Amino acid sequence: MLMLALESSAKAASAALFEDEKMLALSIQTSGLTHSRTLLPMAEDILRNTDKKPEDLGLVAVSRGPGSFTGLRIGLAEAKGLCWALQIPAVGVSTLEAMAYGGPVLDGQMLCCCMDARRGQVYNALFTVEDGKPVRLTEDRAISLPELEKELIASQEPWILLGDGAQLCYNNLDREKVALFMAPEPLRVQNARGVGLAAMDREPVSANDLLPAYLRLSQAERQRLETLEGK
Amino acid sequence: MLMLALESSAKAASAALFEDEKMLALSIQTSGLTHSRTLLPMAEDILRNTDKKPEDLGLVAVSRGPGSFTGLRIGLAEAKGLCWALQIPAVGVSTLEAMAYGGPVLDGQMLCCCMDARRGQVYNALFTVEDGKPVRLTEDRAISLPELEKELIASQEPWILLGDGAQLCYNNLDREKVALFMAPEPLRVQNARGVGLAAMDREPVSANDLLPAYLRLSQAERQRLETLEGK
Repeated sequence: MLMLALESSAKAASAALFEDEKMLALSIQTSGLTHSRTLLPMAEDILRNTDKKPEDLGLVAVSRGPGSFTGLRIGLAEAKGLCWALQIPAVGVSTLEAMAYGGPVLDGQMLCCCMDARRGQVYNALFTVEDGKPVRLTEDRAISLPELEKELIASQEPWILLGDGAQLCYNNLDREKVALFMAPEPLRVQNARGVGLAAMDREPVSANDLLPAYLRLSQAERQRLETLEGK
Repeated sequence: MLMLALESSAKAASAALFEDEKMLALSIQTSGLTHSRTLLPMAEDILRNTDKKPEDLGLVAVSRGPGSFTGLRIGLAEAKGLCWALQIPAVGVSTLEAMAYGGPVLDGQMLCCCMDARRGQVYNALFTVEDGKPVRLTEDRAISLPELEKELIASQEPWILLGDGAQLCYNNLDREKVALFMAPEPLRVQNARGVGLAAMDREPVSANDLLPAYLRLSQAERQRLETLEGK
């Protein structure tokens, strides 16, 4: 079965095409152009360039968050549009889990997936690797850097940092108290290969049921609440 | 300066676009379609998708071998065509060196880059990493598996296997006598990101001077020589 995977949760946009377990094509874009400009053409390009048509798709996988509100909405909207038009199911995967699936895969490795969530926080989840696959140690959460540091130190393990928040953690956490390693660049930042790999271990749903997982309120919603509460 | 990097030395075709040191886009294709069908459209797609034009290019980097004779000729022909048309210089980089540049980058890591050269041999070069960059320990060569095994055992180092010959080496070399690790998949197989990174450390040349480095005679040439020698 042919699966299109999409990743637009952060600055990079990425699309990948899988035939069963095999990745046929991967495209990554970090030009700074908006995802609304780049994501759909990237998907069209990899289909055309592998001699496939949209009608050949059996499934669309997409990262459903956490991440940039606008980026996630573009990815999810594109996935929903494709699924409704083609009458095929979808899989929404956690952005952090997709990072772990796309990352290093030696058993026993400890993976700290993180995105810069601003306001002193990171979106984070911790994983270990068993039988070549990531196993969750925490839920996805928004966590402050000091809290994350405390958890990592308490684990007494060395951690591999993944995600666009890896550098932030590497620079700000106390590396004398916890051993931190930056994953090599092509593994570090979320891309559609990880989304596709993570989707293979999840049950497809109707595109209707594809929902973003923002983890936090948007700035507009926060401001509205604050106004309502008279702050 | 805008640089297009091309990699077509093996089954995967790949194109990448760099603006100075920053990678703007990467595209990888492993559909099994011929490089003559896929490589140029991939380059066109990433230029269009980053709002760039061929005329914006200042340099073309291409892997010049070792590798598949047909694949290398397609990549080099495309690079030469672009450079002549645009009157810009080119950089040809060793396929094995490009693998090392695209691979793991922790100082002290030992990298064994290998491609299946058939007939019991691999195309191989050994590197170590200093200041985040690969440093050559051997020239590119075609070497038999037993000879390579002997060298690796003598080094008393653990080796990270890179390239489309990594699995062949992992399966056939004596892992009780030398510690071998497969690089994670996205780092393992040569792609245009490594070609671009390697090119940044090389001097550009005229497209006239861009030559393939096959390391061995083609099958047709071998057979002709054997016929001439009356074998």
